[in-house]
Amino acid sequence: MRISSRSAVDSFIVMDVMESARAEEAKGADIIHMEVGQPATPAPARARQALAHAMEQGPLGYTVALGLPELRKRVARMYREKHGAEVAAERVVITSGSSAGFILSFLALFDAGQRVGIADPGYPSYRNILKALNLTPQRIEGTLANRYQPQPSDVVGLDGLLVASPANPTGSMLDRAALASLAAACQTAGVNLISDEIYHGVTYGTPAVSALEVTDDVIVINSFSKYYSMTGWRIGWMVVPEDMVRVMERLSQNLFICPSHASQIAALAAMDAEEELQANLAVYAANRALLMNALPDIGFQDIAPPDGAFYIYGSIDRWSADARAFTSAMLKEAGVAATPGLDFDPVRGHRTIRFSYAGSTARMEEGVRRLTTWCASL
Amino acid sequence: MRISSRSAVDSFIVMDVMESARAEEAKGADIIHMEVGQPATPAPARARQALAHAMEQGPLGYTVALGLPELRKRVARMYREKHGAEVAAERVVITSGSSAGFILSFLALFDAGQRVGIADPGYPSYRNILKALNLTPQRIEGTLANRYQPQPSDVVGLDGLLVASPANPTGSMLDRAALASLAAACQTAGVNLISDEIYHGVTYGTPAVSALEVTDDVIVINSFSKYYSMTGWRIGWMVVPEDMVRVMERLSQNLFICPSHASQIAALAAMDAEEELQANLAVYAANRALLMNALPDIGFQDIAPPDGAFYIYGSIDRWSADARAFTSAMLKEAGVAATPGLDFDPVRGHRTIRFSYAGSTARMEEGVRRLTTWCASL
Repeated sequence: MRISSRSAVDSFIVMDVMESARAEEAKGADIIHMEVGQPATPAPARARQALAHAMEQGPLGYTVALGLPELRKRVARMYREKHGAEVAAERVVITSGSSAGFILSFLALFDAGQRVGIADPGYPSYRNILKALNLTPQRIEGTLANRYQPQPSDVVGLDGLLVASPANPTGSMLDRAALASLAAACQTAGVNLISDEIYHGVTYGTPAVSALEVTDDVIVINSFSKYYSMTGWRIGWMVVPEDMVRVMERLSQNLFICPSHASQIAALAAMDAEEELQANLAVYAANRALLMNALPDIGFQDIAPPDGAFYIYGSIDRWSADARAFTSAMLKEAGVAATPGLDFDPVRGHRTIRFSYAGSTARMEEGVRRLTTWCASL
Repeated sequence: MRISSRSAVDSFIVMDVMESARAEEAKGADIIHMEVGQPATPAPARARQALAHAMEQGPLGYTVALGLPELRKRVARMYREKHGAEVAAERVVITSGSSAGFILSFLALFDAGQRVGIADPGYPSYRNILKALNLTPQRIEGTLANRYQPQPSDVVGLDGLLVASPANPTGSMLDRAALASLAAACQTAGVNLISDEIYHGVTYGTPAVSALEVTDDVIVINSFSKYYSMTGWRIGWMVVPEDMVRVMERLSQNLFICPSHASQIAALAAMDAEEELQANLAVYAANRALLMNALPDIGFQDIAPPDGAFYIYGSIDRWSADARAFTSAMLKEAGVAATPGLDFDPVRGHRTIRFSYAGSTARMEEGVRRLTTWCASL
């Protein structure tokens, strides 16, 4: 068989690290998982109960492509309650995780060859999905001074701009004024704006601002993976402008048929599990405080401002200029898995590393102990 | 926002019919569902039990991109047991339904502008996914004489060929000799072959032949939706040549992260629910016999040979040359939902209609009663 050239996308390094960690565990090693961006907690109890019940009540066949009407309504209600934004339920599109949201929005908005701006460091799949769909990712080099976020002047010459707040891997956020000026710059320049808000809810202090608070001319992508603790369920949503609903419906019907019915049922119940979700968040907050205290002392530098999400992104300059070798040695020698920055920034990521602190506090404490000893030995 | 030109794909008409049927039901009508290609039965009891248990045991986070190793092994075992084909578990890629299988295989095999042959009538999303991914669907006009299947001479000038056996909407199958000559023609002409086998298991008499019985140089796409009665769970698999595993892994990581963990657990257990699945199949067989007896008498003509799947595809020439208007009137006046042939054959489908008989026999009997009266009144 002949293989296409567009399939030559980069490996998602974090998943290779996961696989190496699994191999170490198979050999009997005890590994502290700080590589993968997912909660250690299951879907909320209410979500699991709702599904256990629904499984015995009906066949859980296909839903309509845009998702269960009750779930679309419930998401719309959340925007009213948490963001003071009036979003019609018809504009909510349930998706098979934010992954499907990216595929659908890239196909709906851009034709082959168009240029979409993304800040580096950023989520690696942005550029890889763009490439596979014949689009051109346009690197916007973030700096610590601008909190690794794009600036209004960056939109010139683009067809689209993808922003993330809180961002992965930095955790930095765009405040209302920054989001509004980016949205205005996009509107003026005729640039399609996509706002990745999958870490909403996972914030420490100031809540994240939704792009829907400042404009309706945006595609918002969100997910039940992070705040709602449902990574493996592959369920998320988009909010799209009214005139794009039918476009998204047609694309979803053909490309996905529908998101998992079971996951939709669980997601709907998860939205009423605020108490359990806030308890999860309190754990992340404790972990964040622990690591923000310990990691600079251990020697990690230039740590980005982690306003949200559950990551700390910093440099390993003190020890190495090869993040891949560094994380590989750290996994084997210290039993701590983390992700080399190359996943997020192909140009500068050889000198950075991302720690995910979505695990239990006890495991994070053990991680800090191991890193303290191991880094001191370098 | 500007909308892309490649998003201008056709609506998946069967889902619009589903929506119209739902609207009629909301008004209080009793509708016989013969429109949508899905079993009325839930996932097997074993599958639901396995998931109910697993939900309380672990977090069900991301799996590795290629899927749970146990599930990949179990699928490989199925090929040995049911097809006498040795397939290494490493070649099995678990996907978010066959939908993800199509997206992944089209991206992995074809660059923008390449031509992929598909027989008409055929599954409408083939051409729509191809278009959205900048590929050119090449229509191969099927005939009743060739059982609506492509012939070896059809592969000339193509970059890829997609075959389906049993096919949707006709139910016709390719026997071993026919599959082998198509595979040989593809190999000679350097055409990438994809075999859609999602209706395997749903056959009446002769079992379906897998392309893996005649070649390893093929991508096979399959699903737990039909025989395993798990449509809404969005879970399926591919078997790919050894040298494509890593390509698929990279694409899956980036485009999907992983298939639903919950659905993978349920699917694994479903593969051991043979007794329940065979009982479902016995219902389809009874329904098929009922309809194959009744529909020609009612006046439906040129019925394709339904060797497998749960569809009957025939013409409405006797009454109408407008299948969309015909099915719409049939829904409103007779309370029977079916899909106009336009979904499957944009050229000739105005004179055909597809009945799905995956419902209960009692409902199919009621459908026949209604159709008998309504068609007689035309």
